[in-house]
Amino acid sequence: MNGLDEQMAPQTFLYGCLLEAGKEVIFNPEDDDLEHQLDLRMACVDLNTKDELHTVEVEGQDTEGQKVKAVLVSLKPSTLPSVCLGGFTITSPAIFRLKSGSGPIHLSGQHLVMMEADQSFDEEEDEEE
Amino acid sequence: MNGLDEQMAPQTFLYGCLLEAGKEVIFNPEDDDLEHQLDLRMACVDLNTKDELHTVEVEGQDTEGQKVKAVLVSLKPSTLPSVCLGGFTITSPAIFRLKSGSGPIHLSGQHLVMMEADQSFDEEEDEEE
Amino acid sequence: MNGLDEQMAPQTFLYGCLLEAGKEVIFNPEDDDLEHQLDLRMACVDLNTKDELHTVEVEGQDTEGQKVKAVLVSLKPSTLPSVCLGGFTITSPAIFRLKSGSGPIHLSGQHLVMMEADQSFDEEEDEEE
Amino acid sequence: MNGLDEQMAPQTFLYGCLLEAGKEVIFNPEDDDLEHQLDLRMACVDLNTKDELHTVEVEGQDTEGQKVKAVLVSLKPSTLPSVCLGGFTITSPAIFRLKSGSGPIHLSGQHLVMMEADQSFDEEEDEEE
Amino acid sequence: MNGLDEQMAPQTFLYGCLLEAGKEVIFNPEDDDLEHQLDLRMACVDLNTKDELHTVEVEGQDTEGQKVKAVLVSLKPSTLPSVCLGGFTITSPAIFRLKSGSGPIHLSGQHLVMMEADQSFDEEEDEEE
Repeated sequence: MNGLDEQMAPQTFLYGCLLEAGKEVIFNPEDDDLEHQLDLRMACVDLNTKDELHTVEVEGQDTEGQKVKAVLVSLKPSTLPSVCLGGFTITSPAIFRLKSGSGPIHLSGQHLVMMEADQSFDEEEDEEE
Repeated sequence: MNGLDEQMAPQTFLYGCLLEAGKEVIFNPEDDDLEHQLDLRMACVDLNTKDELHTVEVEGQDTEGQKVKAVLVSLKPSTLPSVCLGGFTITSPAIFRLKSGSGPIHLSGQHLVMMEADQSFDEEEDEEE
Repeated sequence: MNGLDEQMAPQTFLYGCLLEAGKEVIFNPEDDDLEHQLDLRMACVDLNTKDELHTVEVEGQDTEGQKVKAVLVSLKPSTLPSVCLGGFTITSPAIFRLKSGSGPIHLSGQHLVMMEADQSFDEEEDEEE
Repeated sequence: MNGLDEQMAPQTFLYGCLLEAGKEVIFNPEDDDLEHQLDLRMACVDLNTKDELHTVEVEGQDTEGQKVKAVLVSLKPSTLPSVCLGGFTITSPAIFRLKSGSGPIHLSGQHLVMMEADQSFDEEEDEEE
Repeated sequence: MNGLDEQMAPQTFLYGCLLEAGKEVIFNPEDDDLEHQLDLRMACVDLNTKDELHTVEVEGQDTEGQKVKAVLVSLKPSTLPSVCLGGFTITSPAIFRLKSGSGPIHLSGQHLVMMEADQSFDEEEDEEE
């Protein structure tokens, strides 16, 4: 890891996943040295999506290290087929699933890979819990 | 707290809450050394949300340190089931509630935790009031 | 003002206002040492807003120091009850008003307070006019 | 220009324009020493806008220095009266016009004025063409 | 390349493309020394777009260097004629196409050109695969 600048910009890759009823999508890249993050940009319906309300749930971690669920977006083909998520940042590990609706629903955005910048901060946080 | 860089990026956690009529959600993490902030990304209805106009109010502080209320978003399941809030920054303490509608309405975003960066600025502000 | 870093992040407060026909809202905090700015995030209708098209106008200054008017957003309760303004930056002084519609319409966002960073640049601009 | 920091933040002014069929709006501030840029935030219809699809076209320059046209946004009063443009960056010179629809359509955002930062880069680009 | 600052801001150009059924749009500028990136801002329908659901697909690379497809946005003229993409970052090479619908659909945004900043990081990544 020598020669790498701490302030280096993250590398950007394309991310896309498809959510269907009863199927979870897990974001948890295994990596020793690099930090992974999603910047979610868009959620949208497909041509095959049934005309009902679809709600997308994400499960991650709160500041206490506990599991927390949040509803990202609600979509219905005839009312609102696409929504900008505006760069919703998801840190790994996270799980996406449909809370209602049978899908499919598309999520897309950027998969960012960067050096772990605040390792000393992380360790201190763990000690304080 | 030794060894921590002042320009360290904030840590990002998942935030989600559910608003229902007559129930306030308070954002006020107790923490001696760290600053907490919400970057709200999305507001959306649920499958169980009644088809009426829902308005979400947030109560926080203005520049004088006085209580101020602002209406964040208005949603109606059949017209606009989701709205991107675009990273609306909420500093603690803050209270969320429904101003109209019976809910439930979901808010989601990032909970940021960072070192208090501008402590000297805060103190000076207080003296000027 | 000693001990303050030029690159200090601005302080963030909650901002909200209510626009009604025939009533202007002025943003012009009086302050000797600090710079004030609005980052508008959301515009939305209220439960009491009549179902007609509402257009919100802002009056500020262009690069020549002349008054300029811009239309921020158009809302109609039954078509589009909320719109994300995406961090529309308003520098003081500015005036908000309804150009059409009787209201009420809510504007909300962040009120940022920061040190005047580019004073020398300002002075040079004035001389060039 | 002595005493000015290269990393100085741009100055922010209000920008607004009105597009009507057959009328072009040109963005091309004449300035020797300063760089001008638009960060477009919103496009919206007016109370007088006819209920038909309006598409807004912008003409600027691509990486080869050639004219390029792009369609910014499509609006219809009864379907979508306002759209957030999310900070669409327009560098001068640029021309806005309606590609379809009779208007009027409002564009608004920030007019940024800054020092020319990358002059040496510009020159190198020109030599490579 | 002498005299160029590593932290230099990217140069911004206008980008626009038109998607029609059966026609791919490729983003893959050939350039030895510069890095190219798209920040997609808007997707919208045209006056001639048929009133059916259009889904836009982008094909790029994931973190493993494998081809990955993501659905950017779904549009229908009578429901949602424009969507803000919020600065969806696309790195070259990438391919855009309609997954459903006959088009035309407009994509627009910024084409950014910058110096390759993290060359040493890239090389290391390649070795690790």
